[in-house]
Amino acid sequence: MSLPTPLTGVVPPLCTPLTPTGEVDTRSLTALAERLIGAGVSGLFVLGSSGEAAYLSDRRRRVVLETVTEAAAGRVPVLAGVIDMTTERVLDHARTAVESGVDGLVATAPFYTRTHPVEIADHFRRIRGGAGLPLFAYDIPASVHTKLTPATVLPLAAEGTLAGLKDSSGDDGALRRLLVEVRRRGLHTSFSVLTGSELAVDGALLAGVHGVVPGLGNVDPEGYVRLYQHARAGRWERAAAEQDRLVALFAITDVGDPAAMGGSSSALGAFKAALHLLGVIDCPATTPPQVPLGDAAVKSVRQLLEYGGLLP
Amino acid sequence: MSLPTPLTGVVPPLCTPLTPTGEVDTRSLTALAERLIGAGVSGLFVLGSSGEAAYLSDRRRRVVLETVTEAAAGRVPVLAGVIDMTTERVLDHARTAVESGVDGLVATAPFYTRTHPVEIADHFRRIRGGAGLPLFAYDIPASVHTKLTPATVLPLAAEGTLAGLKDSSGDDGALRRLLVEVRRRGLHTSFSVLTGSELAVDGALLAGVHGVVPGLGNVDPEGYVRLYQHARAGRWERAAAEQDRLVALFAITDVGDPAAMGGSSSALGAFKAALHLLGVIDCPATTPPQVPLGDAAVKSVRQLLEYGGLLP
Amino acid sequence: MSLPTPLTGVVPPLCTPLTPTGEVDTRSLTALAERLIGAGVSGLFVLGSSGEAAYLSDRRRRVVLETVTEAAAGRVPVLAGVIDMTTERVLDHARTAVESGVDGLVATAPFYTRTHPVEIADHFRRIRGGAGLPLFAYDIPASVHTKLTPATVLPLAAEGTLAGLKDSSGDDGALRRLLVEVRRRGLHTSFSVLTGSELAVDGALLAGVHGVVPGLGNVDPEGYVRLYQHARAGRWERAAAEQDRLVALFAITDVGDPAAMGGSSSALGAFKAALHLLGVIDCPATTPPQVPLGDAAVKSVRQLLEYGGLLP
Amino acid sequence: MSLPTPLTGVVPPLCTPLTPTGEVDTRSLTALAERLIGAGVSGLFVLGSSGEAAYLSDRRRRVVLETVTEAAAGRVPVLAGVIDMTTERVLDHARTAVESGVDGLVATAPFYTRTHPVEIADHFRRIRGGAGLPLFAYDIPASVHTKLTPATVLPLAAEGTLAGLKDSSGDDGALRRLLVEVRRRGLHTSFSVLTGSELAVDGALLAGVHGVVPGLGNVDPEGYVRLYQHARAGRWERAAAEQDRLVALFAITDVGDPAAMGGSSSALGAFKAALHLLGVIDCPATTPPQVPLGDAAVKSVRQLLEYGGLLP
Repeated sequence: MSLPTPLTGVVPPLCTPLTPTGEVDTRSLTALAERLIGAGVSGLFVLGSSGEAAYLSDRRRRVVLETVTEAAAGRVPVLAGVIDMTTERVLDHARTAVESGVDGLVATAPFYTRTHPVEIADHFRRIRGGAGLPLFAYDIPASVHTKLTPATVLPLAAEGTLAGLKDSSGDDGALRRLLVEVRRRGLHTSFSVLTGSELAVDGALLAGVHGVVPGLGNVDPEGYVRLYQHARAGRWERAAAEQDRLVALFAITDVGDPAAMGGSSSALGAFKAALHLLGVIDCPATTPPQVPLGDAAVKSVRQLLEYGGLLP
Repeated sequence: MSLPTPLTGVVPPLCTPLTPTGEVDTRSLTALAERLIGAGVSGLFVLGSSGEAAYLSDRRRRVVLETVTEAAAGRVPVLAGVIDMTTERVLDHARTAVESGVDGLVATAPFYTRTHPVEIADHFRRIRGGAGLPLFAYDIPASVHTKLTPATVLPLAAEGTLAGLKDSSGDDGALRRLLVEVRRRGLHTSFSVLTGSELAVDGALLAGVHGVVPGLGNVDPEGYVRLYQHARAGRWERAAAEQDRLVALFAITDVGDPAAMGGSSSALGAFKAALHLLGVIDCPATTPPQVPLGDAAVKSVRQLLEYGGLLP
Repeated sequence: MSLPTPLTGVVPPLCTPLTPTGEVDTRSLTALAERLIGAGVSGLFVLGSSGEAAYLSDRRRRVVLETVTEAAAGRVPVLAGVIDMTTERVLDHARTAVESGVDGLVATAPFYTRTHPVEIADHFRRIRGGAGLPLFAYDIPASVHTKLTPATVLPLAAEGTLAGLKDSSGDDGALRRLLVEVRRRGLHTSFSVLTGSELAVDGALLAGVHGVVPGLGNVDPEGYVRLYQHARAGRWERAAAEQDRLVALFAITDVGDPAAMGGSSSALGAFKAALHLLGVIDCPATTPPQVPLGDAAVKSVRQLLEYGGLLP
Repeated sequence: MSLPTPLTGVVPPLCTPLTPTGEVDTRSLTALAERLIGAGVSGLFVLGSSGEAAYLSDRRRRVVLETVTEAAAGRVPVLAGVIDMTTERVLDHARTAVESGVDGLVATAPFYTRTHPVEIADHFRRIRGGAGLPLFAYDIPASVHTKLTPATVLPLAAEGTLAGLKDSSGDDGALRRLLVEVRRRGLHTSFSVLTGSELAVDGALLAGVHGVVPGLGNVDPEGYVRLYQHARAGRWERAAAEQDRLVALFAITDVGDPAAMGGSSSALGAFKAALHLLGVIDCPATTPPQVPLGDAAVKSVRQLLEYGGLLP
């Protein structure tokens, strides 16, 4: 299917379920995709940070792409992260993604190396030109240590290089300035702005974003779909109440012991533990060298799911 | 007057007008305070970042405190920034502020030195105990290079050390998590959360903040008061439209040449240039070593004020 | 050949010459390797930051590995960078490197994702166990945004997971503390500490490092070999004079216009421009999206080579 | 006395001993100054980071200045830190320092506020002009979050605004580039470069610095004087051995529990605990909100002093 222009609604960044031996668990991944589609999401984003893209070999990335495009079966568009250090390596991932039949690509600025706005713009142009699919820029300074600026993004939006932006910068002031300028230039009908924050989606929708890419949407997709629908219908207090509930649920990402594991491991481990407890995936394993959640942490995840009404 | 509990509404961080020779221009400062009170603000915050606190000598800080408390004359509460590196130095500023008759204090975490959450908590307790006035924590990692966490703030709120928080972190996800927890603990009636962002106030109010401390509120206080009132009345789309207008006006902070001056100088210079063009203050000078705005930049400020309907 | 224990001397991180169409120029790469060996280096490090590892596809990385191992022909050991985000992806690179016949591997801490010391240690253990070759840790916080600490490195050195450390942190105080502790624990005969700084090699050798991995060594390998030999012979003032000369030559990395290109592009472009001017490689191209050096910049490189006595 | 041009040798940054009630302990401070002069230092630097300048009120800073200038009695020059956020505030400190009879001033770049190289240069020019004493720039990015560049420093050195630089950046590559350029421009006879690192002084002297400002020099001034003399006499291996011994002693700064106190508190607490154990000062207290060292930590300091031969 072709990507809607602009892309709107809830587009969860899918976790990548694994078997106990570390292979991609295609049955569980299909079940996760099915569940999200059933909840009313408007797209699936695979191989993002929540999908452990940084941890998966090229072979496993390919399995993820093929599994999810087959599971989606054209019912909703599939966006694929093509996360790598620089252009040539990103284009290799893009080729695999195109072969798998995805509907759009999501690429970050170059990382590991020091870069420059001129180089970032050239990077996105080469990816768009080389891959031939709609391209979203992924603004995630916590990972790539560069912030995409309006001066970089707006010309790329106007010229058609970028179909959209996934903003995981957490900088809602900068996001608002971008949105006001996108509308002022008449780009809001062709350029889709999605927030990657799961914690202030109501405010982001009030500010004018087209949609949301919430990691927590793996666990509670219905909640984010309700939040989105309340906002679209102008029921802002109800949207805020739904957001508050989801913010409380987000506490699952804190259950890991910060003395013993990284924040990434804790958050990804919690999403998978929740999906396992909810019966969606067969095994909560994350890829090494991430430290697995301990029993007490998993118990805390269960309690938070019960408290949030997701488990009886 | 005593500080309302909780403090709500629009509390602008006042610019500090200067004479051409660099003295505090008490006439202009009084006029600014009068104008803000007339616009319906619910408090005045002096000696914050917008007030050039970092640039003013102790003697000039004292003049600011005395001028604004006299101008406010008990009509609205006055909060005073007591910005300095560590506790003992902050307490010296607090003594002056108390003598000047302010109604509350605003202090950051220690800076210049490396610090620790245990030390930050002790810092706020010593300031509250030593000064005897309601105390707001000022979360401004861009200046102090430490982010206040809920684990630090919530106990201080519960025990009464902190009367509130001014959040200038720009991290609206973290802010939402704090707000949800403040309400869950029943602290929202005694602990006031104010956003220091001027760009996403509608979303922050939807998220539950009590009020806003907008630097741009020096220039367009009526706009922020309208935005606040729309939000309080549940007119969220009108609040968002007002916010969008103010976001466009915020472009005045970008008129300075980044090759020739710092971002601070550009923003503070633009606020003062606007106040000068609007006839509120007599002289747009900022304190050295800030680079003054050039003629072209001031012309851009004028055009943006005209475009925003603040000048004919 | 097997890697000497400990590895000492000058081990330049080879640039990767490209053809005008972007393929690895195997003739020029072979010539570069030959020139370095002829100058008396004690090892070759390929696919490091100076080798544009972040920019090269897997296919091109393989060509580099095969070309240099064949060129070295067992005369000096070859170390291969296996730069990627996390363990599984690094191990895929390690397999290719092992097949190509390299003598040791160089891996960074995980990047892109947030990590933790426990995970970093596990990462190195899995790479060492999976690849079966001597492993150097590459401490390069400018790229991976994590600093390796003695608490992480020393146990890995003691247990034999790490054969050495390439320290590109630029933190010579931390390096000295590590060196003192390495000697105190008797690890200096089995664990090799190499500095990745090209600017303070004399001081690092005085502090006790085993060797140096200088990017500028591509351009002036004889200079670094002389510097190393002076130090080993206790001729410290002559070592310092040689270092001063090389520091002046390092100005070639500044010729790029910072308004138009990144620091990485400028430095890598300058090394290649110099190698081209010296007749070692056929084409000075760097991989996109790096901005190429302009004519004026190349002229400055030539002048600095002449000033440094490398060109007549 | 007038400041030697250039200033060379060991210039320790004096700790500020306090009484149990938090007043400056003038007897102990005099004893410390006396001990350092007796050990052969070539100057005294008061109110630097090691002197807890960030923690001391203006009143206490004045007591420090008066005590140490009186104790020095013209035998060695006294440099005074004038640490504050911006120019006007720094000039207030400078006036006090001048009145106290110090021989030179040490100022950082502006902090708390965002700044710009043009503003930094203006800042130093205004301080030099306003205070009328030789001025050292204090490059301490860990505290002020700006790195002084050669492009800023060299013109200020050439025009006579700066008499020297205290480099506490820890970036020995950048330091070397500066030193080479200082000599190339013939500024090394008028402009004094001092390293603030206590851990790589041998290498810094080999690189050409004029002297060293070691915090650990409070505890073992004889060690640093010996290290300096070995270096000046070309006995580089003996200098390195002395440095190694001092590096081992520096472990006293790690005795604090990182879960319970900041790194600053641990280091400053350790210096004072050592001075107390050595009988130089009467009380090891540091200023609040620094967490004091616990008994176990003090015991570790004692053991390290014994191990280092400073206690029997």
